[in-house]
Amino acid sequence: MGSVVESREWYLASYSPEGVPNSDNLKLRSLSLSLDSHSIPEGHVSLEIVLISVDPYLRTRLTGTLDGLYIAQYEVNEVITAFAVGKVIGSRESKYSEGDVVLVPSAPLAEYCIIPSSTIARKIHAATGISLPHYLSALGVPGFAAWVGIVVLGDPKPGSNVFISAASGAVGTIAGQLAKIRGCRVIGSTGSDQKVKLIKEEFGYDDGFNYNKESDFDAALSKYFPDGIDVYLDNVGGKMLESVLNHVNKHARISLCGMISQYNKVWTEREGVRNLLNMVGKEVRMEGFMLESYWHRFGDFAKEMEGYIKEGKVTSKNKINVGIESFLDSLASLFSSSNIGKVVVQVNEA
Amino acid sequence: MGSVVESREWYLASYSPEGVPNSDNLKLRSLSLSLDSHSIPEGHVSLEIVLISVDPYLRTRLTGTLDGLYIAQYEVNEVITAFAVGKVIGSRESKYSEGDVVLVPSAPLAEYCIIPSSTIARKIHAATGISLPHYLSALGVPGFAAWVGIVVLGDPKPGSNVFISAASGAVGTIAGQLAKIRGCRVIGSTGSDQKVKLIKEEFGYDDGFNYNKESDFDAALSKYFPDGIDVYLDNVGGKMLESVLNHVNKHARISLCGMISQYNKVWTEREGVRNLLNMVGKEVRMEGFMLESYWHRFGDFAKEMEGYIKEGKVTSKNKINVGIESFLDSLASLFSSSNIGKVVVQVNEA
Repeated sequence: MGSVVESREWYLASYSPEGVPNSDNLKLRSLSLSLDSHSIPEGHVSLEIVLISVDPYLRTRLTGTLDGLYIAQYEVNEVITAFAVGKVIGSRESKYSEGDVVLVPSAPLAEYCIIPSSTIARKIHAATGISLPHYLSALGVPGFAAWVGIVVLGDPKPGSNVFISAASGAVGTIAGQLAKIRGCRVIGSTGSDQKVKLIKEEFGYDDGFNYNKESDFDAALSKYFPDGIDVYLDNVGGKMLESVLNHVNKHARISLCGMISQYNKVWTEREGVRNLLNMVGKEVRMEGFMLESYWHRFGDFAKEMEGYIKEGKVTSKNKINVGIESFLDSLASLFSSSNIGKVVVQVNEA
Repeated sequence: MGSVVESREWYLASYSPEGVPNSDNLKLRSLSLSLDSHSIPEGHVSLEIVLISVDPYLRTRLTGTLDGLYIAQYEVNEVITAFAVGKVIGSRESKYSEGDVVLVPSAPLAEYCIIPSSTIARKIHAATGISLPHYLSALGVPGFAAWVGIVVLGDPKPGSNVFISAASGAVGTIAGQLAKIRGCRVIGSTGSDQKVKLIKEEFGYDDGFNYNKESDFDAALSKYFPDGIDVYLDNVGGKMLESVLNHVNKHARISLCGMISQYNKVWTEREGVRNLLNMVGKEVRMEGFMLESYWHRFGDFAKEMEGYIKEGKVTSKNKINVGIESFLDSLASLFSSSNIGKVVVQVNEA
């Protein structure tokens, strides 16, 4: 019957309507799995999970309320799922063989798993010379989000004034580099002086400000955008979005990628934006997006981004936390402003 | 030297940052004008003003603060200007002759005036059989705004669920008919039961609700949009816009035409919209517009709309107040929810 492994996985114990999810909401449990090819169903593969992508949108699937991002809520007792890299252990599908490394957009947040092969997005070929964590950052969810937000929806021109909030986060670090490749002037906001230094030195931002120190956002935007804002990639919502609407140029575009400052609140407690009337006079287009609607462009994106990575034009910073047990703290770190770049959980060695 | 007329005109006496502008803000004064052709400068025409279009955007030019619609503020002591129909008295421009009736997008709010002929948009030919007030309603500012908001930006499909606020107003009455021509299901909100009856009986709305009676907007929208909202033409902003964002379908479009509920408040006192995060999950596109950016489409619009009027597919309701002195009350009436359809001031007989 083949070898049996003990596999730990994260499941939803109770919903977390507000605040940062904790160990009452998410718990680890263990199950026994037979991973050998002859033990798994036809058309399935068994995987050792290598890396898990920790993304802010996961938090919106734990509230018990379908609003905001409107992604299906996890059920109580259901295993959490996430974008992941896995290594094939057993296969009942001819396309995949033992040892293949694969990308799975919605994998169980587990040490091992058995999944339908149709849920695999693609194989990762070691020959590209791109390290595995890049597939979850610049080439994964945040990189794709940055590309849709800046390239597809923002569509800035050379010389455009581009503003990016949460600039030192996983999306912001990539988005800034994409806007620089397009010849824009790029300014970011982030939560510490050290992070401002980082986005300028490592990710090519022209300048940036610490929103905790320059907390009068209107004054800060007046200072950093004397010629107004043409494109804004919003990752935070709330007061920052409101202030941006006081500094937009005619026909500005605002791409709404997510609003990390608002995820831990029920909607009636979120910060209201009072100056939407400015969108009329300045003829602003504001558009929200979810990656699922852009999967048909993923190939274009991946090809473009692989080129940038190989040419050294895009780099990413990955914070790798070791062990599946680190997931809960990793998720919480997204909301604490402690992290920089992409947060990844390394479940097993590649 | 030709005959001299006494002409009264409205001018800005003092700014009105909040509330409804009153007789301290806008005053009438009289001046003497020589209207004969030989008394006016080369390239100019003298006009008898016949009709003046009273539009909500005028209010935003009286605050003394450049925000919201960002249209230039009138200067203190400067004459107010508005979209108008005039009759040529004298002409020093070969294109125009005495008796021509012309459309002027920015005419002095006066009984008579002398203007550069280049500021005339076009002649109105009596042969079309369309009555003059229509040129300020269905074929004027509100009709063009309805067309840009519904046809150009909203772009609803047959069967789309369309919501229009301020439905019995000048823009709303035309917008509803345009959406019906496109085969949509159209619901409007307005301020009284009588107006709900009117939009259904005279302007083809499938249904509507009185926002003063059904003041729980979320409940009302649940009732009238069991299948959600695909296109929203927003004329009010504030709480209604917020409620709409709780009922939008995937890829809904929101055209921001103006926000009449918000014009009489400074921006920090305006109602904040707390659920913009829904725009991410539902991938909503929200876009503000000003007619000046669409003038190149005015010909297309006018041709289409003249066709609808002649075929009886679009009608408009015009409230005509007689005498230039009625302008101030006419403007105030836009904010009192007392008026229906288009408010026009008849300055002189045609």
